[in-house]
Amino acid sequence: MTEPLFDKVAVIGLGLIGSSMARGMKKRGLAATITGFDGSADVRDRSRALGFCDLVADTAEEAVKDAELVILAVPVGAMRAAAQAIAPFLANGAIVTDVGSVKAAIVRTVASALPEHAAFVPGHPVAGTEHSGPEAGFAELFEGRWCVITPCARSTDASVEKVGALWTALGSTVETMTPEHHDIVLAITSIIPHLIAYNIVGTAADLEDVTQSEVIKFSAGGFRDFTRIAASDPVMWRDVFLNNKDAVLEVLGRFSEDLAALQRMIRWDDGQSLEDHFSRTRDIRRGVIDAGQDTADADFGRPHGHED
Amino acid sequence: MTEPLFDKVAVIGLGLIGSSMARGMKKRGLAATITGFDGSADVRDRSRALGFCDLVADTAEEAVKDAELVILAVPVGAMRAAAQAIAPFLANGAIVTDVGSVKAAIVRTVASALPEHAAFVPGHPVAGTEHSGPEAGFAELFEGRWCVITPCARSTDASVEKVGALWTALGSTVETMTPEHHDIVLAITSIIPHLIAYNIVGTAADLEDVTQSEVIKFSAGGFRDFTRIAASDPVMWRDVFLNNKDAVLEVLGRFSEDLAALQRMIRWDDGQSLEDHFSRTRDIRRGVIDAGQDTADADFGRPHGHED
Ligand SMILES: NC(=O)c1ccc[n+]([C@@H]2O[C@H](COP(=O)([O-])OP(=O)(O)OC[C@H]3O[C@@H](n4cnc5c(N)ncnc54)[C@H](OP(=O)(O)O)[C@@H]3O)[C@@H](O)[C@H]2O)c1
Ligand SMILES: NC(=O)c1ccc[n+]([C@@H]2O[C@H](COP(=O)([O-])OP(=O)(O)OC[C@H]3O[C@@H](n4cnc5c(N)ncnc54)[C@H](OP(=O)(O)O)[C@@H]3O)[C@@H](O)[C@H]2O)c1
Repeated sequence: MTEPLFDKVAVIGLGLIGSSMARGMKKRGLAATITGFDGSADVRDRSRALGFCDLVADTAEEAVKDAELVILAVPVGAMRAAAQAIAPFLANGAIVTDVGSVKAAIVRTVASALPEHAAFVPGHPVAGTEHSGPEAGFAELFEGRWCVITPCARSTDASVEKVGALWTALGSTVETMTPEHHDIVLAITSIIPHLIAYNIVGTAADLEDVTQSEVIKFSAGGFRDFTRIAASDPVMWRDVFLNNKDAVLEVLGRFSEDLAALQRMIRWDDGQSLEDHFSRTRDIRRGVIDAGQDTADADFGRPHGHED
Repeated sequence: MTEPLFDKVAVIGLGLIGSSMARGMKKRGLAATITGFDGSADVRDRSRALGFCDLVADTAEEAVKDAELVILAVPVGAMRAAAQAIAPFLANGAIVTDVGSVKAAIVRTVASALPEHAAFVPGHPVAGTEHSGPEAGFAELFEGRWCVITPCARSTDASVEKVGALWTALGSTVETMTPEHHDIVLAITSIIPHLIAYNIVGTAADLEDVTQSEVIKFSAGGFRDFTRIAASDPVMWRDVFLNNKDAVLEVLGRFSEDLAALQRMIRWDDGQSLEDHFSRTRDIRRGVIDAGQDTADADFGRPHGHED
């Protein structure tokens, strides 16, 4: 147990990320009191049963009363409404942070909804799974991961430091950058991979010559890794695409150009260029493993894996 | 231990697949004798040290002498040369099979290289990892997976049955289809996923605004799953693309069309269509998990995973 970093923390939105933060803070004693609120009565009930908050309130007002820190963990498209709902009830000098997967749009829409006396520290933990809802959360989700903080005009040095200390205590390494740079980095490392995964699973479903049962049976050839990503929450991702449009369209344009080049190499039997291209990408894989962001296990340690 | 299915089996190409088959046959006692051969002297030495064959021969001739079954487990582009190298030395009535990831091209090039007295049963185990070489193999690789057999004019009923019995004994479920149908099914479930993964990793490496270190740090957002696939052997995949050109270009055309439609939805803020598309793909994920081709574990059971 660490000394509590905060007296009272309120979590708004009790899904995968919000409930994982509450669990992590509880496990490590980072807040004297944790309250929660969710727009869905059903999620509130399930969260009460799961017990990761000291109190799940029936209104945003009750949840944020006297809170030193308020965490917005709702879908990106709901961030402004969630900020507006808590704004009148924030304690003087409260810190508000968020966990949204896009940052420039959130700085634009959330900052202006908050009262002048509150500080706002935009954040994004780069950790997640394809599951959602309060049952999907777990305290260790952020361990060994990076969390991006993108200070804005409404962030004070003290508030940035406190939110950073929270993420460090949850096991993450904090990196600070501008909201715009965040949006382009995440476009390539997270958003475009999701778009492509959704797309190929859709393409597979539409082929007339191949049955869905065949796609499923033979998915171990590579396809299954895309189905995992494409099982992610549709509402969350819709919001992410629409709120990071410029960076997404820019990176997607690059991706399509590069794909057209590979397609041409295949059409014209240019084996040497294909091989060169494929060899080049191995370095990045090594970097991902060395940085502890993945394991080198055959098959990710899936049950039928390596036993030799 | 099962009754041996074969008296003597020769494995040509002692990489991931060839060495896994040898290990699996040895573990289950499926062959009285297993011999091996590889074009590389270094691989032969390492295979001798690993000991998964009774004998690693220095020539293809010595390996296939008196073999009842010969398994070609070399890259697709080397299949014809490997078939030509063994052809003069095949025992009368020997069965030849292969494990290549494309089938129509192999039927065209391999069958005609083999003597009339030998039977040829084209096969493809849909199981693999991104690693290659004899050290990467393991006996359980084929357990719980599907193996496709694509009989051709040179396959006899008895030879198809015997090769099928081998795969069943190695733990796979056998499915029979035409070489052409195999090639289109695998284009979507395996080949296009690899092409796209290679492509996005390449696109990421080329972005001027994002450093390689950033790509690696924030890869947990989805990108890392692509880097695994893109770490696969460049030579193997070059051959697969070039030898399944028609199906690959056909499915890639569909993929690009569908991606253009998603891009348009993003550009025109069509959130409803995006959400509908993303929802549709979840069924396939459920199918993959229900069929035992993946696990539902958060994060594939990577070390920092779910412990709640
Ligand atoms: N999932 C990831 O991998 C990941 C990773 C990093 C960051 N993020 C970000 O984290 C945020 C939450 O994602 P999540 O995966 O935790 O989603 P989630 O599991 O779907 O949870 C979101 C919860 O917020 C509730 N909600 C929606 N609007 C609300 C409002 N105005 N006031 C209060 N509650 C509201 C939702 O209720 P209803 O279901 O009734 O709408 C839902 O219970 C998103 O901004 C996302 O971009 C996600
Ligand atoms: N990897 C997969 O996930 C997977 C899955 C299903 C099917 N397959 C298929 O299985 C086959 C083998 O793949 P793999 O992953 O096992 O490859 P691998 O680990 O690279 O092994 C192939 C071995 O064959 C040797 N070789 C090349 N040409 C030869 C020749 N003419 N005669 C004898 N040996 C030769 C190679 O030696 P050099 O290194 O000196 O060339 C190498 O040691 C390919 O056709 C592939 O399409 C692969």
